[in-house]
Amino acid sequence: MKKYFLLTPGPTPVPPEVLLEEAKPILHHRTTEFGKIFIEVIEDMKYVFQTKNDVLMVTGSGTAAMESAVVNLLSEGDEVIVVSTGNFGDRWEKICQAYKVKVHKISVEWGYAANPKDVENLLSSNKNIKAVFATHTETSTGVVNDIETIGKIVNKTNAVLVVDTISGLAGQKFLTDEWFVDVAVTGSQKGLMCAPGLSFVSVSEKAWKLVETSQLPKFYFDWKKMKKSIESKETPFTPAVSLVVAIHKSLEIIKQKTLQKIWADTEKLAIACREAVKSMGLKIFSDEPVTCNILTPILMPEGIDGQKVVKTMREDFGISIAGGQDKLKGKIVRIAHMGYIDKFDLVVAISGLEIVMNKLGYKIELGSGTKVLEQKLF
Amino acid sequence: MKKYFLLTPGPTPVPPEVLLEEAKPILHHRTTEFGKIFIEVIEDMKYVFQTKNDVLMVTGSGTAAMESAVVNLLSEGDEVIVVSTGNFGDRWEKICQAYKVKVHKISVEWGYAANPKDVENLLSSNKNIKAVFATHTETSTGVVNDIETIGKIVNKTNAVLVVDTISGLAGQKFLTDEWFVDVAVTGSQKGLMCAPGLSFVSVSEKAWKLVETSQLPKFYFDWKKMKKSIESKETPFTPAVSLVVAIHKSLEIIKQKTLQKIWADTEKLAIACREAVKSMGLKIFSDEPVTCNILTPILMPEGIDGQKVVKTMREDFGISIAGGQDKLKGKIVRIAHMGYIDKFDLVVAISGLEIVMNKLGYKIELGSGTKVLEQKLF
Repeated sequence: MKKYFLLTPGPTPVPPEVLLEEAKPILHHRTTEFGKIFIEVIEDMKYVFQTKNDVLMVTGSGTAAMESAVVNLLSEGDEVIVVSTGNFGDRWEKICQAYKVKVHKISVEWGYAANPKDVENLLSSNKNIKAVFATHTETSTGVVNDIETIGKIVNKTNAVLVVDTISGLAGQKFLTDEWFVDVAVTGSQKGLMCAPGLSFVSVSEKAWKLVETSQLPKFYFDWKKMKKSIESKETPFTPAVSLVVAIHKSLEIIKQKTLQKIWADTEKLAIACREAVKSMGLKIFSDEPVTCNILTPILMPEGIDGQKVVKTMREDFGISIAGGQDKLKGKIVRIAHMGYIDKFDLVVAISGLEIVMNKLGYKIELGSGTKVLEQKLF
Repeated sequence: MKKYFLLTPGPTPVPPEVLLEEAKPILHHRTTEFGKIFIEVIEDMKYVFQTKNDVLMVTGSGTAAMESAVVNLLSEGDEVIVVSTGNFGDRWEKICQAYKVKVHKISVEWGYAANPKDVENLLSSNKNIKAVFATHTETSTGVVNDIETIGKIVNKTNAVLVVDTISGLAGQKFLTDEWFVDVAVTGSQKGLMCAPGLSFVSVSEKAWKLVETSQLPKFYFDWKKMKKSIESKETPFTPAVSLVVAIHKSLEIIKQKTLQKIWADTEKLAIACREAVKSMGLKIFSDEPVTCNILTPILMPEGIDGQKVVKTMREDFGISIAGGQDKLKGKIVRIAHMGYIDKFDLVVAISGLEIVMNKLGYKIELGSGTKVLEQKLF
């Protein structure tokens, strides 16, 4: 008998009442019963995205929804800007390259946010840009980008703004319409408090116009087919019905709590977590003013391997936190605090981290981090 | 309080013990715990496919796995044969066309099986054919195709054989290796007794060679990335973890029962269902020697709208059966008997059908069909 604690930035824990919805007997996907649930999910997602635009659903990981944006908006040889602040920004580039889309890349040193001015300069020097791809909260570095300012810039041009808010949505403030985000992409397994396997996109009028000119091949990811199906409360192909029924429940919880309260609570967790980490004598990886609220990236001290910290926490105590990705492997660990991850989960994680750091030979005063959490969170 | 009975050819009902697995707390997908389950699922799928080939998993509908076969095997302008015996055979053509693959189509009148001789003739008159796409059990018409003979024919050529056995696998006998099927595609929501959202492909050595030459764009569907990830017991992107944990359980049930027993039981249900339908004075839609075992397609008598039959059964009694697709809309109804659909589920469906047909004005002696089921099944 082992207790598990999940504090990774996706998948995140799922509330028991949502898990139980997932365990309900399967509904056929072409029934009025399912159609009603599906349309309510689509409508609720408009609230979560804060948009009046169309929302579409893909049965697939967040990456599937990202790829759907590329193949529905673009044609081979099109020029785009990819604003990358980490591993997930780079993913936009890789998807574009797979489809022979020409990428003008704005790269920022990992741990820093993008400078909207760079986007403005590149857009004004190249009038052929069809789309700007960006990341809201960059999960690999813990940075939040200033999508609001980037949105204002892109909105003045003919390009569309496509934003990956897979880890950010329903955790960190995100206003699709007010920020002029033409396409926003998210997944079910982060702030939405559901199991992974569903992803969503919001599509503006401006984006739909680009869809009309797109020549890239697509079938499963075809947005026009999805939009047409929604008119009859259906999906083009058999969706993950049990996940749709489950997310219907978690969206109900989100609506009841309100996005404003979720954003505020997540921020409170983030601030407390950062202070706790500092009180333990550790450093936050990303530059403070740009650290996002949904996770805390912790820089490992010299001589401590982050991968070993993650492994020991999981093996000794069943606590899952995330290590660093790519060039940050071993150098940072990441503790998520979004969705169904709440105050005492954070107490458990910080407590486990204190014990494990000592075990691995880095002296931390036991209770120093948890003390700060107790002071700040309760 | 309404009881629901699901007898559609996908999604099919899920055993309660599998549903409860789906409701377990979420595991992170990059842990040894999940890795072990994932690899066992892959290995168990080799048993279900009856193959020693690689098996890959896609988080997505069966159509996603179909599309993955097209984009991983082919290049623009490649010539292929599509053997279509219905709606799902046509889907191969549509996917190929979306990617500008040149399709030589063998079309068979709906309700009949494909003639392997036609494949042989087309292959010998065109040496450029890279792949032959076929359907095992054509869900739209209830026909089973002779994949064994088609396999022997394609095996003598340089072309690969790609078979959609989304509805057939773990219901109707299918031997990937013995029948020389290079790529077999299936989904989680039919004979595999799990919720929809996962799909699987098996890939032969011959198919991998073709993958090396493929130029079609892909990212989420990239088989090489999937194969590489499996080496470290992972998936390239966040998989639908709860569905993987669930199907792990249903595969355990399938292994315990054995495929041979499942094929035999499904055939027994099919024979009894067809006899019951005939005893009610109704006709089977597809030509009997080619009717598959996983569902029974019932021709509606003159003046009876199949869509109304389906709707009435669902609204009055909570019984979900399927109507006809495309050109068969209204003309047939389809009762599935695969996966977790068992004897008394069929009694319920035939009983409901008797009542509803009478209600809609077609005289059937009440109890005539159920009597046959009781005689034949128990």
